[in-house]
Amino acid sequence: MQRVSVDEFRRSGLAMVVPVSGVESIPLGDASSRISSREVRSRLPLPWFRRSAVDGYALRAEDAKLPLTVVAKVTAGRPTDRVVGPGEAVEITTGAPMPEGADAVALVERSRRTGDTVVIDEPVGPGAHVSPVGEDFGVGQLLLATDAPVTPIVVASLASQGQEMVEVWRRPRVAILSTGDELMPLGSELSHGQVYDVNGAILEAMVREAGGEPVRVPPVADRYEDVRDRLRALIADPEWDILVSSGGTGASIPVFEGRDIRTLHDLIPGVAAELGELIHHGIRMSPGRPTALARIGQRPFFALPGWPYAVLVHFEMLVEPAIRRAAHRPPRVRRPVVGRLSSPIPAMPDFTWVIQARFEPGEEGVPSVIPLLPPPPPSASRVMTQMLEADGILIVEADEPLATGTSVTVWTDPQDPAGGSW
Amino acid sequence: MQRVSVDEFRRSGLAMVVPVSGVESIPLGDASSRISSREVRSRLPLPWFRRSAVDGYALRAEDAKLPLTVVAKVTAGRPTDRVVGPGEAVEITTGAPMPEGADAVALVERSRRTGDTVVIDEPVGPGAHVSPVGEDFGVGQLLLATDAPVTPIVVASLASQGQEMVEVWRRPRVAILSTGDELMPLGSELSHGQVYDVNGAILEAMVREAGGEPVRVPPVADRYEDVRDRLRALIADPEWDILVSSGGTGASIPVFEGRDIRTLHDLIPGVAAELGELIHHGIRMSPGRPTALARIGQRPFFALPGWPYAVLVHFEMLVEPAIRRAAHRPPRVRRPVVGRLSSPIPAMPDFTWVIQARFEPGEEGVPSVIPLLPPPPPSASRVMTQMLEADGILIVEADEPLATGTSVTVWTDPQDPAGGSW
Repeated sequence: MQRVSVDEFRRSGLAMVVPVSGVESIPLGDASSRISSREVRSRLPLPWFRRSAVDGYALRAEDAKLPLTVVAKVTAGRPTDRVVGPGEAVEITTGAPMPEGADAVALVERSRRTGDTVVIDEPVGPGAHVSPVGEDFGVGQLLLATDAPVTPIVVASLASQGQEMVEVWRRPRVAILSTGDELMPLGSELSHGQVYDVNGAILEAMVREAGGEPVRVPPVADRYEDVRDRLRALIADPEWDILVSSGGTGASIPVFEGRDIRTLHDLIPGVAAELGELIHHGIRMSPGRPTALARIGQRPFFALPGWPYAVLVHFEMLVEPAIRRAAHRPPRVRRPVVGRLSSPIPAMPDFTWVIQARFEPGEEGVPSVIPLLPPPPPSASRVMTQMLEADGILIVEADEPLATGTSVTVWTDPQDPAGGSW
Repeated sequence: MQRVSVDEFRRSGLAMVVPVSGVESIPLGDASSRISSREVRSRLPLPWFRRSAVDGYALRAEDAKLPLTVVAKVTAGRPTDRVVGPGEAVEITTGAPMPEGADAVALVERSRRTGDTVVIDEPVGPGAHVSPVGEDFGVGQLLLATDAPVTPIVVASLASQGQEMVEVWRRPRVAILSTGDELMPLGSELSHGQVYDVNGAILEAMVREAGGEPVRVPPVADRYEDVRDRLRALIADPEWDILVSSGGTGASIPVFEGRDIRTLHDLIPGVAAELGELIHHGIRMSPGRPTALARIGQRPFFALPGWPYAVLVHFEMLVEPAIRRAAHRPPRVRRPVVGRLSSPIPAMPDFTWVIQARFEPGEEGVPSVIPLLPPPPPSASRVMTQMLEADGILIVEADEPLATGTSVTVWTDPQDPAGGSW
């Protein structure tokens, strides 16, 4: 099977995703950053009653030049039934409902009160300081569009309608499967040769950040039959929308004992091809060339390699866009920072090379970009340390080496405090 | 009391905040974006055993030129006790523990196997394709600093230690108090003149976004005695860190009946001055000049005006920085977008004017910025509609009017999809 480009792999993954159709009705207070599953329009205009915009006296504008008799008082939430007649005024506070008969409000600071009589010191036109019904919005105003996020302002607009609940898309459920005999759950004691399931933990955290709901599945051993049984069970299980595995995508001795490995795909892709449809196996990307994409149980299955850095990068570049589409979310925003390379990067023709990078202060305010290249073999890599030290990633597609001083873009988290604030 | 600048008000608020000292131990899978309360260093090196970086044969490098006898097989998670002697090799897979006696691994693709004998086709140096203990990091490596956010990479590094739980600062508890006789809970039936508690809903959503835990308190009526009783109860209640109210900061007729309003602060600030210490009342900022800051029960109390737009802006500019400091978080990141004004903005000398703004495509790729100015009196304002339409806010400090075409900065949400993606 031919290795495909990052773009082709990502497009294939996105094309397989069906945005979730399930809906949840949740309390407004818990809805921040969830995605609306249907548009909401106003049922109540805002304001829904004619109200005063200031503290003062409600009156008939035509009477404002006369001394007026104060016949009642209304405050916010405490209306009056008294109709304002000729020569009369009603004391009124900001936000209080206008009494019938009055068509304007005179400002308290432009009035003189003596007992029950008030004199207004300036002309008052009809409608002055009165908010008519629907001044802010009328019935049928769009408050929340389908597929839009619930922001604090949306919360406010729905609250103005008295709405306690809001309908949002359920989060896509992403099943997470780690493969390897050596994997042990966190908190357990390790025997010689065993390690903790780091990839499961990375994927769980990243699925949440992408707006998905992680569904952890116990790790499966590196044996064809075990993997096949597990994938069969997953195919029969309707409780996931997208499946992501880590490990088992490269040829391995114990897996294919007695088989001709040239006619078989590797472990996970091989089982996926047997039980479903293998779309891609191999991507022109470093790290993580043996990543695979399949369709099993009518759903997308991303089979990532086992190295944590490959899991991180492939998730961000291939899986996260799919989860976000399933969640009715736009692609995630990254903050591009331009800097100059502090050391060269070798060519890797026809490949997308994702390299972690750190910033240091550079000349003329342009940051210096330190590429954290993997060490050459025979060493394996200090990937976890590099990931902890990195400020962002470089995406390099270079047929020629990049020289020191080349201008490059590092993609960073927009929430990074270095991003700036007002 | 003198109106102060936005900067002075914000600095006073920040100075009153004590970062929370309470700690929670939570499962790693729930910790994304929480803030670490103490540094974590590695107890286990990574890898914690000598392992193979490839599939191949573990051997003594000095023997690699000889035909070797394959005496055992190790796979990840399945070590062997067999010590590799002279002329011997052990079949090994990626990540599997190196057997004793062997000091190098030969690649499977550079070997020929016949029965129990294997011939290696290239020279193999000592240490080739072996990851020594601690190659990635040793014991004592900093995995998570105090006050740093728990990112997916941090989750991965803690998972490599088998750590199931992580200690984070508890979220600061922010009590939310709305004032007004007219306020009704969401979902209730409204009588004439009543409205829903929009500000309570905005504040709840924004407190959550700031990393706080909202504590809703029932609304209180606009009466001095009611407010005093409620604040007294809050002072006796240890279950909040910051108090935020909306409404009741401007002079109001029913409140001060029978009092001399020139010697009293307004409702909420007046009660705060009686029961605690009033630090500021009045800010040179539009919207929302009568905002107040007080200390009650040894804690900061932000008394915001009642207009939803003022609540939104004052929360973002004054209260959110305080909540984030209490939460041990850096200031929130905003994305500045530079554009050109599509219409003039009048001067407002010595004031900070916060204006909502919308973008439209402009000339030469520079967006056109449409300032959403409040309509002039006698109208009240279409603030909710403007908030729903705005793409960001302008912060204007202009002694002179700003002409059409002036270059201005609009502050937007860095998560806005218009921000760009790779």
